[in-house]
Amino acid sequence: MLKLYYAPNTCALATHIALEEAGADYTTVRIDFAKAEQQSPEYLKINPKGRVPALVTDRGILTETPAMLAFVAQSFPAAGLAPFDDPFAFAEVQAFNSYLCSTVHVAHAHRMRGHRWVDPDDKAAIAAMQRKVPQSVTAGFELIERGMLKGPWVMGERYTICDPYLFTLAQWLDADGVDPARVPRVIDHRRRVGERAATQRALEAEKALASAA
Amino acid sequence: MLKLYYAPNTCALATHIALEEAGADYTTVRIDFAKAEQQSPEYLKINPKGRVPALVTDRGILTETPAMLAFVAQSFPAAGLAPFDDPFAFAEVQAFNSYLCSTVHVAHAHRMRGHRWVDPDDKAAIAAMQRKVPQSVTAGFELIERGMLKGPWVMGERYTICDPYLFTLAQWLDADGVDPARVPRVIDHRRRVGERAATQRALEAEKALASAA
Repeated sequence: MLKLYYAPNTCALATHIALEEAGADYTTVRIDFAKAEQQSPEYLKINPKGRVPALVTDRGILTETPAMLAFVAQSFPAAGLAPFDDPFAFAEVQAFNSYLCSTVHVAHAHRMRGHRWVDPDDKAAIAAMQRKVPQSVTAGFELIERGMLKGPWVMGERYTICDPYLFTLAQWLDADGVDPARVPRVIDHRRRVGERAATQRALEAEKALASAA
Repeated sequence: MLKLYYAPNTCALATHIALEEAGADYTTVRIDFAKAEQQSPEYLKINPKGRVPALVTDRGILTETPAMLAFVAQSFPAAGLAPFDDPFAFAEVQAFNSYLCSTVHVAHAHRMRGHRWVDPDDKAAIAAMQRKVPQSVTAGFELIERGMLKGPWVMGERYTICDPYLFTLAQWLDADGVDPARVPRVIDHRRRVGERAATQRALEAEKALASAA
């Protein structure tokens, strides 16, 4: 059985939702960032990167959201979450998710995780990064708004593994200082994904486990 | 026919090598960063992100190295550049390439492209980012060195689309201030990929076009 290591309010939500969409049999393990569990010796054996998410499978452990999403889609083909039989269409899915992980999520991460790229004690540099976040995250989402989001779903008529990932990063728009009026189609997409039963099940599970912890 | 937009000394080299490995019929177009051609109105029609690489296909335009590499591998299956028939093995390939684009390349980019994440006029913050690059890039390559690079190729006995991508980012190790003694297996892999005929053809083509421009 699959086992997802996650923390609330992280990009692990994308894979959590995809597992629900796929109808997968899986369990979850919550990692407590407040206790730095992602850096514990036990967790580093699962993911030496010290981050979430990680997906334990019967073949081994996977990390990196775009790869985990593609794995879920390919392992549960009946759910139709990615067009594996069409190299160009599948590459479009991968390109969208790659843009989210390498550009949009990275821009966002400069608000809370600036220590990855400067000395953590350099408060001025940390603050300089935080000041840029509204602009860089807005720029990333505006490209999605104007061209990449075909509608109603990211890839058009068919819901794919791009949708829970965009939904997940769009959770942070407000805190990142993005004016929602500049990305109305993204906001509408966020509402639409949020209304799906699979999304609600994943969100409720993360909430329930968080309050039980 | 496929058309690759690239600039020398960028991550476009990974796809260029993969096209050679695949035996693909393709042409290249060199984008001159010194003239800011990646921001020209003509190029922004091809790639609104204003970056290289971009791959023009008869179905449309692809961007993002992990997606382009998977497209090349899936379009030329005889070259055996990715295990599409095995969801877990394919996810491992995707996870490796996703780590390169979202963590290793991003760490490197803080040396020359810091303006993406702070005000370009904030010279102190730009310098703070540059000072961290040797440490953050070394950390990224050490994870590869100690675990992810199976050897002799990234995924073990079989050369895949992970190999030209790692080779490409490893071109920048020295300029990024990484001590090669800390990543001997990565250095050895770089030499091994560099000796392949496909790699040499791609490198020579980029050199020849650069001097003709």
